[in-house]
Amino acid sequence: MPDSEFDIIERYFQRSQPMRDDVLLGIGDDAALLRVPAGKQLVVAVDTLVAGRHFPKQTSAADIGHKALAVNLSDLAAMGATPAWATLALTLPTADTAWLQAFSSGFFQLADEYAITLIGGDTTRGPLSITVQVHGFVEPGRALQRSTARPGDAVYVSGTLGEAACALQKILADEMPEAALLQRLNRPQPRVALGQSLAGLASAAIDISDGLLADLGRLLTASSCGATLWPDRLPCSSALQHLPAGQARDCQFNGGDDYELCFTLPEDKRKALAAVQAQHAV
Amino acid sequence: MPDSEFDIIERYFQRSQPMRDDVLLGIGDDAALLRVPAGKQLVVAVDTLVAGRHFPKQTSAADIGHKALAVNLSDLAAMGATPAWATLALTLPTADTAWLQAFSSGFFQLADEYAITLIGGDTTRGPLSITVQVHGFVEPGRALQRSTARPGDAVYVSGTLGEAACALQKILADEMPEAALLQRLNRPQPRVALGQSLAGLASAAIDISDGLLADLGRLLTASSCGATLWPDRLPCSSALQHLPAGQARDCQFNGGDDYELCFTLPEDKRKALAAVQAQHAV
Repeated sequence: MPDSEFDIIERYFQRSQPMRDDVLLGIGDDAALLRVPAGKQLVVAVDTLVAGRHFPKQTSAADIGHKALAVNLSDLAAMGATPAWATLALTLPTADTAWLQAFSSGFFQLADEYAITLIGGDTTRGPLSITVQVHGFVEPGRALQRSTARPGDAVYVSGTLGEAACALQKILADEMPEAALLQRLNRPQPRVALGQSLAGLASAAIDISDGLLADLGRLLTASSCGATLWPDRLPCSSALQHLPAGQARDCQFNGGDDYELCFTLPEDKRKALAAVQAQHAV
Repeated sequence: MPDSEFDIIERYFQRSQPMRDDVLLGIGDDAALLRVPAGKQLVVAVDTLVAGRHFPKQTSAADIGHKALAVNLSDLAAMGATPAWATLALTLPTADTAWLQAFSSGFFQLADEYAITLIGGDTTRGPLSITVQVHGFVEPGRALQRSTARPGDAVYVSGTLGEAACALQKILADEMPEAALLQRLNRPQPRVALGQSLAGLASAAIDISDGLLADLGRLLTASSCGATLWPDRLPCSSALQHLPAGQARDCQFNGGDDYELCFTLPEDKRKALAAVQAQHAV
Protein backbone atom coordinates (compact mmCIF):
# COMPACT_ATOMS: atom_id res chain seq x y z
CA MET A 1 0.00 0.00 0.00
CA PRO A 2 2.42 2.66 -1.19
CA ASP A 3 0.23 5.67 -0.53
CA SER A 4 -1.25 4.91 2.83
CA GLU A 5 1.95 3.31 4.12
CA PHE A 6 3.45 6.59 5.21
CA ASP A 7 0.26 7.82 6.80
CA ILE A 8 0.04 4.66 8.85
CA ILE A 9 3.65 4.72 9.91
CA GLU A 10 3.51 8.35 10.80
CA ARG A 11 0.25 8.22 12.66
CA TYR A 12 0.85 5.18 14.82
CA PHE A 13 4.55 4.58 14.90
CA GLN A 14 6.25 7.94 14.56
CA ARG A 15 5.04 9.07 17.96
CA SER A 16 7.17 10.64 20.62
CA GLN A 17 9.88 8.16 21.48
CA PRO A 18 12.69 7.88 23.98
CA MET A 19 15.45 10.36 23.06
CA ARG A 20 18.51 8.23 22.47
CA ASP A 21 21.67 9.98 21.40
CA ASP A 22 22.69 6.86 19.45
CA VAL A 23 19.79 7.39 16.99
CA LEU A 24 20.98 10.00 14.49
CA LEU A 25 18.08 9.54 12.06
CA GLY A 26 15.02 7.43 12.83
CA ILE A 27 11.79 6.65 10.96
CA GLY A 28 11.08 8.59 7.77
CA ASP A 29 14.09 8.26 5.47
CA ASP A 30 15.25 5.35 3.30
CA ALA A 31 17.13 3.93 6.28
CA ALA A 32 17.97 4.74 9.87
CA LEU A 33 21.33 6.19 10.85
CA LEU A 34 22.76 4.94 14.12
CA ARG A 35 25.82 5.03 16.31
CA VAL A 36 26.98 2.02 18.29
CA PRO A 37 28.56 3.26 21.53
CA ALA A 38 32.36 3.02 21.56
CA GLY A 39 33.63 -0.26 22.94
CA LYS A 40 30.31 -2.10 22.59
CA GLN A 41 29.41 -5.00 20.35
CA LEU A 42 26.12 -5.01 18.46
CA VAL A 43 23.65 -7.87 19.03
CA VAL A 44 20.91 -8.44 16.42
CA ALA A 45 17.91 -10.80 16.55
CA VAL A 46 14.85 -11.19 14.33
CA ASP A 47 11.62 -13.14 14.80
CA THR A 48 8.37 -13.37 12.87
CA LEU A 49 4.91 -13.99 14.32
CA VAL A 50 2.31 -15.35 11.88
CA ALA A 51 -1.41 -15.13 12.80
CA GLY A 52 -2.90 -18.51 13.69
CA ARG A 53 0.54 -20.04 14.08
CA HIS A 54 2.37 -18.01 16.71
CA PHE A 55 -0.74 -16.60 18.32
CA PRO A 56 -4.41 -17.67 18.19
CA LYS A 57 -6.44 -15.61 15.72
CA GLN A 58 -8.56 -14.16 18.55
CA THR A 59 -5.50 -12.61 20.25
CA SER A 60 -5.99 -8.89 20.88
CA ALA A 61 -3.96 -6.42 18.84
CA ALA A 62 -2.35 -5.00 21.99
CA ASP A 63 -1.21 -8.48 23.04
CA ILE A 64 0.19 -9.13 19.54
CA GLY A 65 2.09 -5.83 19.66
CA HIS A 66 3.56 -6.74 23.03
CA LYS A 67 4.43 -10.29 22.04
CA ALA A 68 6.06 -9.39 18.71
CA LEU A 69 8.60 -7.29 20.59
CA ALA A 70 8.83 -9.54 23.67
CA VAL A 71 9.89 -12.68 21.77
CA ASN A 72 12.74 -10.70 20.22
CA LEU A 73 13.82 -9.15 23.51
CA SER A 74 13.95 -12.67 24.87
CA ASP A 75 16.64 -13.44 22.29
CA LEU A 76 18.63 -10.40 23.39
CA ALA A 77 18.17 -11.54 27.01
CA ALA A 78 19.63 -14.93 26.10
CA MET A 79 22.74 -13.10 24.83
CA GLY A 80 23.02 -10.91 27.94
CA ALA A 81 22.51 -7.81 25.81
CA THR A 82 20.99 -4.41 26.63
CA PRO A 83 18.21 -3.55 24.13
CA ALA A 84 18.46 -0.32 22.16
CA TRP A 85 16.56 -0.19 18.85
CA ALA A 86 13.84 -2.09 16.99
CA THR A 87 12.44 -2.22 13.47
CA LEU A 88 8.92 -3.39 12.67
CA ALA A 89 7.81 -5.01 9.40
CA LEU A 90 4.04 -5.24 9.65
CA THR A 91 1.92 -7.05 7.07
CA LEU A 92 -1.79 -6.64 7.65
CA PRO A 93 -4.92 -7.27 5.61
CA THR A 94 -6.48 -3.83 6.13
CA ALA A 95 -5.35 -0.55 7.65
CA ASP A 96 -7.75 -0.95 10.58
CA THR A 97 -7.20 2.10 12.76
CA ALA A 98 -8.53 0.59 15.99
CA TRP A 99 -6.30 -2.45 15.48
CA LEU A 100 -3.25 -0.28 14.72
CA GLN A 101 -3.90 1.89 17.74
CA ALA A 102 -4.07 -1.11 20.06
CA PHE A 103 -1.15 -2.89 18.41
CA SER A 104 1.12 0.12 18.65
CA SER A 105 0.13 0.77 22.27
CA GLY A 106 1.06 -2.82 23.20
CA PHE A 107 4.31 -2.54 21.28
CA PHE A 108 5.37 0.82 22.70
CA GLN A 109 4.39 0.02 26.27
CA LEU A 110 7.02 -2.72 26.26
CA ALA A 111 9.48 -0.67 24.20
CA ASP A 112 9.28 2.16 26.71
CA GLU A 113 10.08 -0.20 29.59
CA TYR A 114 13.48 -0.72 27.99
CA ALA A 115 13.93 2.74 26.42
CA ILE A 116 13.90 1.12 22.99
CA THR A 117 13.49 3.41 19.97
CA LEU A 118 11.62 2.20 16.89
CA ILE A 119 14.04 3.25 14.16
CA GLY A 120 12.23 2.08 11.03
CA GLY A 121 9.92 -0.39 9.41
CA ASP A 122 7.74 -1.33 6.52
CA THR A 123 3.97 -1.65 6.32
CA THR A 124 2.56 -3.93 3.64
CA ARG A 125 -0.83 -5.37 2.79
CA GLY A 126 -1.27 -9.13 3.13
CA PRO A 127 -2.10 -11.88 5.61
CA LEU A 128 -1.33 -10.72 9.16
CA SER A 129 2.29 -11.27 10.13
CA ILE A 130 4.80 -9.26 12.11
CA THR A 131 8.58 -9.35 11.85
CA VAL A 132 10.46 -7.44 14.51
CA GLN A 133 14.21 -7.05 14.59
CA VAL A 134 15.93 -5.84 17.73
CA HIS A 135 19.39 -4.43 18.27
CA GLY A 136 21.23 -4.36 21.56
CA PHE A 137 24.69 -3.84 22.97
CA VAL A 138 27.03 -6.00 24.97
CA GLU A 139 30.54 -5.55 26.36
CA PRO A 140 33.15 -7.42 24.32
CA GLY A 141 33.68 -10.93 25.66
CA ARG A 142 30.51 -10.96 27.78
CA ALA A 143 27.85 -12.14 25.31
CA LEU A 144 26.15 -15.38 26.34
CA GLN A 145 26.26 -18.09 23.69
CA ARG A 146 24.76 -21.54 23.20
CA SER A 147 27.95 -23.32 22.37
CA THR A 148 30.06 -22.63 25.43
CA ALA A 149 28.64 -24.97 28.10
CA ARG A 150 31.19 -27.41 29.54
CA PRO A 151 30.85 -30.85 31.17
CA GLY A 152 30.33 -30.42 34.90
CA ASP A 153 28.30 -27.21 34.55
CA ALA A 154 24.91 -27.16 36.26
CA VAL A 155 21.74 -26.44 34.22
CA TYR A 156 19.30 -23.78 35.47
CA VAL A 157 16.04 -22.32 34.26
CA SER A 158 14.41 -19.07 35.31
CA GLY A 159 10.81 -18.83 36.55
CA THR A 160 8.29 -21.57 35.88
CA LEU A 161 7.55 -23.32 32.62
CA GLY A 162 4.50 -24.58 30.80
CA GLU A 163 1.83 -22.03 31.69
CA ALA A 164 1.74 -20.50 28.20
CA ALA A 165 1.40 -23.95 26.61
CA CYS A 166 -1.36 -24.84 29.07
CA ALA A 167 -3.22 -21.62 28.20
CA LEU A 168 -2.93 -22.40 24.50
CA GLN A 169 -4.23 -25.95 25.01
CA LYS A 170 -7.29 -24.55 26.76
CA ILE A 171 -7.94 -21.96 24.05
CA LEU A 172 -7.68 -24.59 21.33
CA ALA A 173 -10.17 -26.72 23.31
CA ASP A 174 -12.55 -23.73 23.50
CA GLU A 175 -12.01 -23.36 27.23
CA MET A 176 -11.21 -20.05 28.91
CA PRO A 177 -7.78 -20.18 30.60
CA GLU A 178 -7.27 -18.57 34.01
CA ALA A 179 -6.02 -14.98 33.79
CA ALA A 180 -2.54 -15.87 35.07
CA LEU A 181 -2.10 -18.53 32.39
CA LEU A 182 -3.37 -16.23 29.65
CA GLN A 183 -0.97 -13.53 30.80
CA ARG A 184 1.96 -15.92 30.31
CA LEU A 185 0.79 -16.71 26.76
CA ASN A 186 -0.10 -13.19 25.62
CA ARG A 187 2.21 -10.99 27.66
CA PRO A 188 5.49 -12.84 28.05
CA GLN A 189 8.03 -10.89 30.08
CA PRO A 190 11.46 -11.20 28.48
CA ARG A 191 14.20 -11.90 31.01
CA VAL A 192 16.34 -8.96 29.96
CA ALA A 193 17.61 -7.95 33.43
CA LEU A 194 18.40 -11.55 34.30
CA GLY A 195 20.31 -12.01 31.04
CA GLN A 196 22.38 -8.93 31.77
CA SER A 197 23.16 -10.26 35.25
CA LEU A 198 24.22 -13.59 33.80
CA ALA A 199 26.58 -12.05 31.21
CA GLY A 200 30.08 -12.89 32.37
CA LEU A 201 28.70 -15.42 34.87
CA ALA A 202 26.81 -18.19 33.04
CA SER A 203 28.84 -20.41 30.72
CA ALA A 204 26.03 -20.68 28.12
CA ALA A 205 22.40 -19.62 27.69
CA ILE A 206 19.38 -19.95 25.41
CA ASP A 207 15.85 -18.65 25.69
CA ILE A 208 13.05 -21.20 25.96
CA SER A 209 10.66 -20.52 23.12
CA ASP A 210 9.98 -24.02 21.76
CA GLY A 211 9.97 -25.91 25.06
CA LEU A 212 12.67 -26.80 27.57
CA LEU A 213 13.68 -30.10 25.99
CA ALA A 214 13.92 -28.69 22.47
CA ASP A 215 15.86 -25.59 23.48
CA LEU A 216 18.10 -27.24 26.06
CA GLY A 217 18.75 -29.82 23.34
CA ARG A 218 19.97 -27.06 21.03
CA LEU A 219 22.27 -25.66 23.71
CA LEU A 220 23.68 -29.13 24.43
CA THR A 221 24.15 -29.93 20.74
CA ALA A 222 25.92 -26.62 20.17
CA SER A 223 28.13 -27.29 23.22
CA SER A 224 28.67 -31.01 22.48
CA CYS A 225 27.47 -31.86 25.99
CA GLY A 226 24.84 -34.04 27.62
CA ALA A 227 22.75 -33.29 30.70
CA THR A 228 20.76 -35.08 33.37
CA LEU A 229 17.46 -33.47 34.34
CA TRP A 230 15.62 -34.04 37.61
CA PRO A 231 12.00 -33.38 36.70
CA ASP A 232 10.97 -32.96 40.35
CA ARG A 233 13.44 -30.11 40.82
CA LEU A 234 11.78 -28.06 38.09
CA PRO A 235 9.57 -25.44 39.81
CA CYS A 236 5.90 -26.00 38.98
CA SER A 237 3.57 -23.02 38.99
CA SER A 238 0.48 -23.25 41.16
CA ALA A 239 -1.68 -23.03 38.02
CA LEU A 240 -0.17 -26.24 36.65
CA GLN A 241 -0.50 -28.11 39.97
CA HIS A 242 -4.22 -28.58 39.26
CA LEU A 243 -3.49 -30.49 36.06
CA PRO A 244 -3.01 -34.25 35.80
CA ALA A 245 0.72 -34.86 36.46
CA GLY A 246 1.41 -36.13 32.94
CA GLN A 247 -0.17 -33.12 31.30
CA ALA A 248 1.58 -30.67 33.61
CA ARG A 249 4.93 -32.29 32.92
CA ASP A 250 4.30 -32.26 29.18
CA CYS A 251 3.59 -28.52 29.31
CA GLN A 252 6.71 -27.90 31.40
CA PHE A 253 9.06 -29.88 29.19
CA ASN A 254 7.56 -29.58 25.72
CA GLY A 255 5.36 -26.49 25.87
CA GLY A 256 6.41 -23.43 23.94
CA ASP A 257 6.21 -19.69 24.49
CA ASP A 258 7.82 -19.69 27.95
CA TYR A 259 10.47 -17.05 27.17
CA GLU A 260 12.39 -18.01 30.26
CA LEU A 261 16.16 -18.47 30.15
CA CYS A 262 17.91 -21.82 30.33
CA PHE A 263 21.59 -21.45 31.24
CA THR A 264 24.56 -23.35 32.49
CA LEU A 265 26.91 -22.44 35.31
CA PRO A 266 30.36 -23.71 36.23
CA GLU A 267 30.72 -25.13 39.74
CA ASP A 268 32.88 -22.20 40.90
CA LYS A 269 30.23 -19.61 39.98
CA ARG A 270 27.47 -21.00 42.19
CA LYS A 271 28.07 -18.53 44.97
CA ALA A 272 27.98 -15.60 42.58
CA LEU A 273 24.65 -16.90 41.27
CA ALA A 274 23.11 -16.61 44.73
CA ALA A 275 23.21 -12.81 44.46
CA VAL A 276 21.52 -12.99 41.07
CA GLN A 277 18.91 -15.41 42.42
CA ALA A 278 18.06 -12.97 45.18
CA GLN A 279 17.09 -10.45 42.48
CA HIS A 280 15.46 -12.70 39.88
CA ALA A 281 13.41 -15.90 40.12
CA VAL A 282 15.75 -18.65 38.86
CA MET B 1 7.74 -24.96 12.12
CA PRO B 2 9.94 -25.26 15.20
CA ASP B 3 11.59 -28.57 14.33
CA SER B 4 12.33 -28.19 10.67
CA GLU B 5 13.25 -24.51 11.01
CA PHE B 6 16.83 -25.24 11.94
CA ASP B 7 17.26 -27.86 9.25
CA ILE B 8 16.06 -25.40 6.63
CA ILE B 9 18.21 -22.56 7.85
CA GLU B 10 21.26 -24.75 8.11
CA ARG B 11 20.84 -26.45 4.78
CA TYR B 12 20.14 -23.46 2.59
CA PHE B 13 21.31 -20.42 4.44
CA GLN B 14 24.24 -21.46 6.61
CA ARG B 15 26.46 -22.06 3.61
CA SER B 16 29.94 -20.82 3.20
CA GLN B 17 29.79 -17.04 3.34
CA PRO B 18 32.19 -14.15 2.92
CA MET B 19 34.55 -14.05 5.90
CA ARG B 20 34.00 -10.66 7.47
CA ASP B 21 35.96 -9.83 10.59
CA ASP B 22 33.06 -7.66 11.77
CA VAL B 23 30.83 -10.76 12.20
CA LEU B 24 31.80 -12.30 15.55
CA LEU B 25 28.89 -14.76 15.68
CA GLY B 26 26.52 -15.37 12.76
CA ILE B 27 23.58 -17.70 12.17
CA GLY B 28 22.86 -20.36 14.79
CA ASP B 29 22.59 -18.65 18.17
CA ASP B 30 19.77 -16.57 19.69
CA ALA B 31 21.22 -13.48 18.03
CA ALA B 32 24.18 -12.37 15.95
CA LEU B 33 27.17 -10.65 17.50
CA LEU B 34 28.71 -7.88 15.41
CA ARG B 35 31.28 -5.15 15.46
CA VAL B 36 30.73 -1.83 13.71
CA PRO B 37 34.11 -0.57 12.46
CA ALA B 38 35.54 2.29 14.52
CA GLY B 39 34.49 5.70 13.23
CA LYS B 40 31.61 4.41 11.09
CA GLN B 41 27.91 4.99 11.51
CA LEU B 42 25.45 2.13 11.12
CA VAL B 43 22.70 2.35 8.46
CA VAL B 44 19.68 0.03 8.79
CA ALA B 45 16.82 -0.57 6.33
CA VAL B 46 14.02 -3.14 6.22
CA ASP B 47 11.55 -4.06 3.48
CA THR B 48 8.95 -6.78 3.08
CA LEU B 49 7.88 -8.45 -0.17
CA VAL B 50 4.45 -10.12 -0.14
CA ALA B 51 3.57 -12.66 -2.88
CA GLY B 52 1.06 -11.30 -5.38
CA ARG B 53 1.60 -7.75 -4.17
CA HIS B 54 5.31 -7.00 -4.59
CA PHE B 55 5.92 -9.66 -7.21
CA PRO B 56 3.57 -11.64 -9.48
CA LYS B 57 2.80 -15.11 -8.13
CA GLN B 58 4.54 -16.72 -11.11
CA THR B 59 7.88 -15.07 -10.26
CA SER B 60 10.67 -17.62 -9.97
CA ALA B 61 12.14 -18.33 -6.54
CA ALA B 62 15.59 -17.20 -7.68
CA ASP B 63 14.18 -13.86 -8.82
CA ILE B 64 12.34 -13.44 -5.51
CA GLY B 65 15.53 -14.16 -3.59
CA HIS B 66 17.40 -11.57 -5.64
CA LYS B 67 14.67 -8.95 -5.39
CA ALA B 68 14.12 -9.32 -1.62
CA LEU B 69 17.72 -8.33 -1.06
CA ALA B 70 17.95 -5.84 -3.97
CA VAL B 71 15.10 -3.61 -2.77
CA ASN B 72 16.81 -3.29 0.59
CA LEU B 73 20.21 -2.58 -0.92
CA SER B 74 18.52 0.16 -2.90
CA ASP B 75 17.63 1.84 0.41
CA LEU B 76 21.26 1.62 1.53
CA ALA B 77 22.30 3.05 -1.85
CA ALA B 78 19.97 6.00 -1.28
CA MET B 79 21.85 6.68 1.97
CA GLY B 80 25.28 6.38 0.34
CA ALA B 81 26.09 3.42 2.59
CA THR B 82 28.34 0.40 2.05
CA PRO B 83 26.39 -2.86 2.66
CA ALA B 84 27.69 -5.30 5.26
CA TRP B 85 25.12 -7.68 6.79
CA ALA B 86 21.59 -8.94 6.16
CA THR B 87 18.93 -10.85 8.06
CA LEU B 88 16.18 -12.83 6.37
CA ALA B 89 12.72 -13.52 7.82
CA LEU B 90 11.14 -15.99 5.44
CA THR B 91 7.50 -17.06 5.74
CA LEU B 92 6.58 -19.82 3.31
CA PRO B 93 3.68 -22.22 2.96
CA THR B 94 5.77 -25.40 2.65
CA ALA B 95 9.44 -26.27 3.04
CA ASP B 96 9.79 -26.89 -0.70
CA THR B 97 13.43 -27.84 -1.20
CA ALA B 98 13.62 -26.89 -4.91
CA TRP B 99 12.11 -23.50 -4.12
CA LEU B 100 14.48 -22.93 -1.20
CA GLN B 101 17.48 -23.94 -3.29
CA ALA B 102 16.56 -21.47 -6.04
CA PHE B 103 15.58 -18.70 -3.61
CA SER B 104 18.81 -18.95 -1.67
CA SER B 105 20.89 -19.05 -4.85
CA GLY B 106 19.25 -15.81 -6.06
CA PHE B 107 19.73 -14.22 -2.66
CA PHE B 108 23.36 -15.22 -2.21
CA GLN B 109 24.39 -14.39 -5.77
CA LEU B 110 23.53 -10.77 -5.06
CA ALA B 111 24.84 -10.90 -1.48
CA ASP B 112 28.20 -12.15 -2.75
CA GLU B 113 28.48 -9.24 -5.19
CA TYR B 114 28.63 -6.94 -2.19
CA ALA B 115 30.39 -9.29 0.26
CA ILE B 116 27.29 -9.24 2.45
CA THR B 117 27.06 -11.86 5.21
CA LEU B 118 23.68 -13.29 6.20
CA ILE B 119 23.89 -13.01 9.98
CA GLY B 120 20.54 -14.43 11.06
CA GLY B 121 16.90 -14.95 10.31
CA ASP B 122 13.70 -16.74 11.07
CA THR B 123 11.79 -19.28 9.02
CA THR B 124 8.07 -19.59 9.64
CA ARG B 125 5.16 -21.32 7.97
CA GLY B 126 2.48 -19.14 6.41
CA PRO B 127 1.55 -17.28 3.23
CA LEU B 128 4.72 -16.45 1.23
CA SER B 129 6.37 -13.25 2.38
CA ILE B 130 9.97 -12.17 2.82
CA THR B 131 11.32 -9.50 5.13
CA VAL B 132 14.97 -8.62 4.67
CA GLN B 133 16.86 -6.18 6.83
CA VAL B 134 20.20 -4.84 5.71
CA HIS B 135 22.95 -3.11 7.62
CA GLY B 136 25.64 -0.91 6.13
CA PHE B 137 28.22 1.63 7.14
CA VAL B 138 28.80 5.24 6.30
CA GLU B 139 31.36 7.84 7.32
CA PRO B 140 29.97 10.34 9.85
CA GLY B 141 28.44 13.34 8.11
CA ARG B 142 28.28 11.71 4.67
CA ALA B 143 24.94 9.87 4.76
CA LEU B 144 22.50 11.02 2.08
CA GLN B 145 19.11 12.07 3.43
CA ARG B 146 15.75 13.08 1.98
CA SER B 147 15.34 16.25 3.93
CA THR B 148 18.43 18.19 2.94
CA ALA B 149 17.67 19.44 -0.61
CA ARG B 150 17.78 23.21 -0.97
CA PRO B 151 16.10 25.64 -3.38
CA GLY B 152 18.28 26.05 -6.47
CA ASP B 153 19.54 22.46 -6.42
CA ALA B 154 19.14 20.49 -9.65
CA VAL B 155 17.19 17.19 -9.65
CA TYR B 156 18.78 14.10 -11.24
CA VAL B 157 17.79 10.50 -11.73
CA SER B 158 20.02 7.54 -12.54
CA GLY B 159 19.40 5.20 -15.46
CA THR B 160 16.02 4.94 -17.16
CA LEU B 161 12.63 4.63 -15.52
CA GLY B 162 9.43 2.74 -16.20
CA GLU B 163 10.64 -0.55 -17.66
CA ALA B 164 9.73 -2.58 -14.58
CA ALA B 165 6.24 -1.07 -14.52
CA CYS B 166 5.84 -1.77 -18.23
CA ALA B 167 6.87 -5.41 -17.69
CA LEU B 168 4.35 -5.76 -14.88
CA GLN B 169 1.56 -4.27 -17.01
CA LYS B 170 2.27 -6.85 -19.69
CA ILE B 171 2.33 -9.75 -17.22
CA LEU B 172 -0.98 -8.64 -15.72
CA ALA B 173 -2.41 -8.49 -19.27
CA ASP B 174 -1.17 -12.05 -19.88
CA GLU B 175 1.43 -10.86 -22.38
CA MET B 176 5.06 -11.93 -22.29
CA PRO B 177 7.34 -8.91 -21.71
CA GLU B 178 10.64 -8.61 -23.61
CA ALA B 179 13.60 -10.09 -21.72
CA ALA B 180 15.12 -6.67 -21.01
CA LEU B 181 11.90 -5.41 -19.43
CA LEU B 182 11.47 -8.56 -17.38
CA GLN B 183 15.04 -8.24 -16.15
CA ARG B 184 14.28 -4.77 -14.79
CA LEU B 185 11.23 -6.11 -12.92
CA ASN B 186 12.72 -9.30 -11.55
CA ARG B 187 16.40 -8.50 -11.21
CA PRO B 188 16.67 -4.85 -10.18
CA GLN B 189 20.27 -3.72 -9.78
CA PRO B 190 20.58 -1.54 -6.68
CA ARG B 191 22.65 1.59 -7.30
CA VAL B 192 25.03 0.93 -4.45
CA ALA B 193 28.22 2.17 -6.14
CA LEU B 194 26.49 5.30 -7.39
CA GLY B 195 25.11 6.02 -3.92
CA GLN B 196 28.58 5.72 -2.43
CA SER B 197 29.93 8.13 -5.07
CA LEU B 198 27.16 10.60 -4.29
CA ALA B 199 27.78 10.57 -0.52
CA GLY B 200 29.30 13.92 0.33
CA LEU B 201 28.32 15.27 -3.11
CA ALA B 202 24.53 15.18 -3.54
CA SER B 203 22.49 17.38 -1.23
CA ALA B 204 19.66 14.82 -0.88
CA ALA B 205 18.67 11.43 -2.27
CA ILE B 206 15.90 8.83 -2.30
CA ASP B 207 15.50 5.57 -4.15
CA ILE B 208 12.67 5.29 -6.67
CA SER B 209 10.57 2.33 -5.61
CA ASP B 210 7.02 3.70 -5.93
CA GLY B 211 7.53 5.84 -9.05
CA LEU B 212 9.43 9.06 -9.71
CA LEU B 213 6.60 11.44 -8.86
CA ALA B 214 5.72 9.70 -5.59
CA ASP B 215 9.30 9.38 -4.40
CA LEU B 216 10.51 12.77 -5.59
CA GLY B 217 7.42 14.14 -3.86
CA ARG B 218 8.59 12.56 -0.59
CA LEU B 219 12.05 14.07 -0.98
CA LEU B 220 10.56 17.50 -1.71
CA THR B 221 8.11 17.29 1.18
CA ALA B 222 10.90 16.28 3.56
CA SER B 223 13.06 19.15 2.24
CA SER B 224 10.21 21.72 2.08
CA CYS B 225 11.06 22.41 -1.56
CA GLY B 226 9.32 22.39 -4.93
CA ALA B 227 10.73 21.27 -8.27
CA THR B 228 10.13 21.76 -11.99
CA LEU B 229 10.45 18.66 -14.15
CA TRP B 230 11.13 18.64 -17.88
CA PRO B 231 9.57 15.38 -19.03
CA ASP B 232 11.49 15.42 -22.31
CA ARG B 233 14.82 15.49 -20.51
CA LEU B 234 14.08 12.20 -18.73
CA PRO B 235 16.00 9.46 -20.56
CA CYS B 236 13.61 6.95 -22.15
CA SER B 237 14.76 3.38 -22.63
CA SER B 238 14.54 1.94 -26.12
CA ALA B 239 12.03 -0.63 -24.85
CA LEU B 240 9.60 2.12 -23.85
CA GLN B 241 9.99 4.02 -27.13
CA HIS B 242 7.71 1.47 -28.81
CA LEU B 243 4.84 2.29 -26.46
CA PRO B 244 2.21 4.99 -27.05
CA ALA B 245 3.70 8.22 -25.64
CA GLY B 246 1.10 8.52 -22.87
CA GLN B 247 1.67 5.00 -21.63
CA ALA B 248 5.46 5.33 -21.75
CA ARG B 249 5.30 8.58 -19.78
CA ASP B 250 2.96 7.05 -17.21
CA CYS B 251 5.41 4.17 -16.68
CA GLN B 252 8.32 6.60 -16.37
CA PHE B 253 6.64 8.90 -13.88
CA ASN B 254 4.28 6.67 -11.96
CA GLY B 255 5.64 3.16 -12.43
CA GLY B 256 7.19 1.40 -9.48
CA ASP B 257 10.09 -0.99 -8.95
CA ASP B 258 12.71 1.14 -10.73
CA TYR B 259 15.24 1.13 -7.88
CA GLU B 260 17.11 3.98 -9.47
CA LEU B 261 18.27 6.94 -7.39
CA CYS B 262 16.71 10.38 -7.48
CA PHE B 263 19.02 13.02 -6.02
CA THR B 264 19.60 16.74 -5.84
CA LEU B 265 22.81 18.60 -6.45
CA PRO B 266 23.86 22.15 -5.57
CA GLU B 267 24.96 24.32 -8.47
CA ASP B 268 28.60 24.31 -7.34
CA LYS B 269 28.83 20.52 -7.40
CA ARG B 270 27.92 20.05 -11.05
CA LYS B 271 31.50 19.69 -12.18
CA ALA B 272 32.21 17.07 -9.54
CA LEU B 273 29.18 15.16 -10.76
CA ALA B 274 30.69 14.85 -14.23
CA ALA B 275 33.29 12.42 -12.91
CA VAL B 276 30.55 10.36 -11.28
CA GLN B 277 28.50 10.43 -14.49
CA ALA B 278 31.46 9.05 -16.40
CA GLN B 279 31.31 5.98 -14.15
CA HIS B 280 27.57 5.51 -13.69
CA ALA B 281 24.56 6.18 -15.92
CA VAL B 282 22.87 9.25 -14.44
